[in-house]
Amino acid sequence: MYLVNISSELIYTVESPSSFVFNIAAANTVHQKTLQENLIISPSIDSEWFQLNDFGCRGLRLQTDPCELSIRYNASVELSPEIERVFYLNEVEHKRLPAAVLPFLSPSRYCESDRLGRFAWKEFGQLASGYSRVQEICNWVNTHIDYVAGSTDSSTSACDVLIQRAGVCRDFAHVSIALCRALGIPARYVSGYAVGLKPPDFHGFFEVYLEDRWYLFDATRMAPISGLVRAGIGLDAADASFANIVGQVTMLSINVQADAADPSFLYSDGVPVSTA
Amino acid sequence: MYLVNISSELIYTVESPSSFVFNIAAANTVHQKTLQENLIISPSIDSEWFQLNDFGCRGLRLQTDPCELSIRYNASVELSPEIERVFYLNEVEHKRLPAAVLPFLSPSRYCESDRLGRFAWKEFGQLASGYSRVQEICNWVNTHIDYVAGSTDSSTSACDVLIQRAGVCRDFAHVSIALCRALGIPARYVSGYAVGLKPPDFHGFFEVYLEDRWYLFDATRMAPISGLVRAGIGLDAADASFANIVGQVTMLSINVQADAADPSFLYSDGVPVSTA
Amino acid sequence: MYLVNISSELIYTVESPSSFVFNIAAANTVHQKTLQENLIISPSIDSEWFQLNDFGCRGLRLQTDPCELSIRYNASVELSPEIERVFYLNEVEHKRLPAAVLPFLSPSRYCESDRLGRFAWKEFGQLASGYSRVQEICNWVNTHIDYVAGSTDSSTSACDVLIQRAGVCRDFAHVSIALCRALGIPARYVSGYAVGLKPPDFHGFFEVYLEDRWYLFDATRMAPISGLVRAGIGLDAADASFANIVGQVTMLSINVQADAADPSFLYSDGVPVSTA
Amino acid sequence: MYLVNISSELIYTVESPSSFVFNIAAANTVHQKTLQENLIISPSIDSEWFQLNDFGCRGLRLQTDPCELSIRYNASVELSPEIERVFYLNEVEHKRLPAAVLPFLSPSRYCESDRLGRFAWKEFGQLASGYSRVQEICNWVNTHIDYVAGSTDSSTSACDVLIQRAGVCRDFAHVSIALCRALGIPARYVSGYAVGLKPPDFHGFFEVYLEDRWYLFDATRMAPISGLVRAGIGLDAADASFANIVGQVTMLSINVQADAADPSFLYSDGVPVSTA
Repeated sequence: MYLVNISSELIYTVESPSSFVFNIAAANTVHQKTLQENLIISPSIDSEWFQLNDFGCRGLRLQTDPCELSIRYNASVELSPEIERVFYLNEVEHKRLPAAVLPFLSPSRYCESDRLGRFAWKEFGQLASGYSRVQEICNWVNTHIDYVAGSTDSSTSACDVLIQRAGVCRDFAHVSIALCRALGIPARYVSGYAVGLKPPDFHGFFEVYLEDRWYLFDATRMAPISGLVRAGIGLDAADASFANIVGQVTMLSINVQADAADPSFLYSDGVPVSTA
Repeated sequence: MYLVNISSELIYTVESPSSFVFNIAAANTVHQKTLQENLIISPSIDSEWFQLNDFGCRGLRLQTDPCELSIRYNASVELSPEIERVFYLNEVEHKRLPAAVLPFLSPSRYCESDRLGRFAWKEFGQLASGYSRVQEICNWVNTHIDYVAGSTDSSTSACDVLIQRAGVCRDFAHVSIALCRALGIPARYVSGYAVGLKPPDFHGFFEVYLEDRWYLFDATRMAPISGLVRAGIGLDAADASFANIVGQVTMLSINVQADAADPSFLYSDGVPVSTA
Repeated sequence: MYLVNISSELIYTVESPSSFVFNIAAANTVHQKTLQENLIISPSIDSEWFQLNDFGCRGLRLQTDPCELSIRYNASVELSPEIERVFYLNEVEHKRLPAAVLPFLSPSRYCESDRLGRFAWKEFGQLASGYSRVQEICNWVNTHIDYVAGSTDSSTSACDVLIQRAGVCRDFAHVSIALCRALGIPARYVSGYAVGLKPPDFHGFFEVYLEDRWYLFDATRMAPISGLVRAGIGLDAADASFANIVGQVTMLSINVQADAADPSFLYSDGVPVSTA
Repeated sequence: MYLVNISSELIYTVESPSSFVFNIAAANTVHQKTLQENLIISPSIDSEWFQLNDFGCRGLRLQTDPCELSIRYNASVELSPEIERVFYLNEVEHKRLPAAVLPFLSPSRYCESDRLGRFAWKEFGQLASGYSRVQEICNWVNTHIDYVAGSTDSSTSACDVLIQRAGVCRDFAHVSIALCRALGIPARYVSGYAVGLKPPDFHGFFEVYLEDRWYLFDATRMAPISGLVRAGIGLDAADASFANIVGQVTMLSINVQADAADPSFLYSDGVPVSTA
């Protein structure tokens, strides 16, 4: 159990009456608790927290007339991962998956697992089932895809990335998720904060359902797994973006931070940590 | 308020131990009640009903060893649509949409609304907002897309269909949903039964959120709206297919029926009916 | 018969030994003659003109070690279009097409006519055959596609543009060509110069084979047809780009001009002119 | 030098006046000579041979009113490959490529080499340049793509196949060609006959330009390279299909044969043979 302090500052020029849904708050799960948090909205505007889904995610809604809008959020988050003997973590037979997990077997906008069945089975079908297979998928993605800022946009999907072989964090997650689902392994997208990410920004990673819970993975290997703080959870980035905006709005700046209160608690890069 | 009798018979050759999730039962919503239903599974196998989502949909899970499996389901369903003065039905501003409706604004596997913003605004942006605009989208889809059995497969998306200009019922729904979402109108996929559909089969159609509830639409115009019985509800067909199967299974036959107890209650084709 | 003066200046930073093929010289055809031309390459480098294809196009090849490379080309070009009573221009039956025209019926990298058969026939199949049908295709493209600088890149194809509904000159040409070929009308891509184009740049347009020769069209309507000077001719932009470069090269500047010696010879926008 | 006897029989039901272009005759190149050939068309119809391109390919054109049309072609073809010490065959620097070869560096309808630059360089960029690198591409394609009859259709491109990991001979060729071009190696599609192909059919393979000429490759490894007889040569299958037909026509049967007069002349599978 250890603390991570997160903060995000978003500043927009709002040019028409606009409606916002933010997904920047730390989720509350079995292994992640928000101890204290602050939200400062300027100018002062009514806003509303709401439950985004059944996974502990919270949305923030607000509307505003034209203005310069700033959203400042910070929180202290307690992470209490249970370390597992991960090589004993098994994939779960379809018939034993909880009903709530089944939607994460289906293809989604950016994870066309329906097209990747043969690909996934040819590359990963011979590997031992379980945690190590998902690690091999992360290895494959990390090796075969280059991290190139600006190489993708909001319409880029896993199949696009497998062809162009370049992407950013959300693309690494989408490819990994698509390959997992193609193998029959439930996988879901997580957006949030990452201790040690350079340059600092929101991060995108993913979770896989093994044994009896969801486990965090990050094929980018740009930050320690144990320093990941979940904000949004969904099918893919379409379902877990940090802001949905309707109106004429321009982002002026974004500033995201995540720091471990005691960095010695952070495991070295790549060490798996059980969550949720 | 009137009755529709539905039935479906699915027969499979199961060649390996297999796991099934069916989504063939009538949903229970404010305007649709299952009065009585029967399920016969042969050979006799344990099965389990479960709640698929928050929209009243029910799933049926079962596992079996190799056998010839038949699933026979029938039900009497009471439909009580509230007829609205539909030309007064408005689209809902983003800021007033209930949180539970927001996910149906996002792009999904088969409905790439993120790519269709300019398309939708150029074709439909000048039209009066509200129910009539959705009807115009249905008109456009019905006119511009040919219904051609076998022209698409399980990986075909709305953008594919807009290029090839042919599809089946699920494709008509996907294109319509994608165009609605691109305009900021929440839309979701519905699978189920349709009185009068020729040839009889499961049907795919869609719902749009207007004013304060979901309204049924069907761009194929192959069956009266008032004879539609909902089974699955989701983002698109990936989220609402009638069967998900893991195992070596071959479908031998499918037989679907939907009949109005008193056909005079059916409205003529195209007449809108409020639901849910 | 009238003169158009064209010029292009291309400046590159060459960072490794590099090989260039330019396609910037005016083609020589029955209706287009290069009267005089100058080429200045700096630093002084050996270069070679060669025949690019059987349509009168000329390529320029050169190699260089690292340097700042500038290519300055200018020419006086005599255009002698034969004005036709265009509404009598017929499409040509497949069996009467010259063998040299047949390749321009096939799909190509950026013009997937094989996917657009139903699209083209639904939109344009009922129209009278001939010149006016191609004009209608231009009208449709001009109305349905927005000209948006920067909206596409080098991998964008006609089908992509039909979905996103935005593009630049090469995209307008690709969509038009793809629709023509889908109808069985031979069409080819032309790159070159355009009098009156704002902002000045290389332009992309297309030719269609009618009656017994190729006719120029430009769905962008950004310049008079009679002021178009052809440099490259091919299947699509993959086959007729103004420069192919192998090496580490950065473009520093591009400056393109095209002026009619006597502007009164230019026909008003949209007036068809026979060529080739 | 040795003889291969080839034959093809195509039978169609022609339901409307139709126009045909066939590309079934053996090409004549430096290393392939048609010694004698017969063509029988039934019913008796005027037909015309014409030169398809500058690579020695011949087209056959004919038109017919409704009928049952049969085309029977056979030929004795003399192949005289020059066996090379293939490990000395180099790739050719861009600046030394003959102008006639340059078009085979560009992306084409089914070979989107423009999208595959990073893919090709990551997979094959570290390998020694030359013949062996192309062999490695064939190995990769043969290992990573499954040959599955019926898995693709006429709109399937190299990128599609790289995702779905299945295809037929034309797809194996398209992927190989796209990867070669992405590396800057000229490659072109060849359609024709193959001794020993099972089941017998037209075959699709490819040629790569090395040192000073074109060399045959076949990533399917379904027939010996030395038994390949070229009919069509082009950018890809869009440019070299065995029949282009305009009219209402249904194929009734196809029967293709290729036999070595003295099978002992055939090299074992995979042994490279220089050609053209």
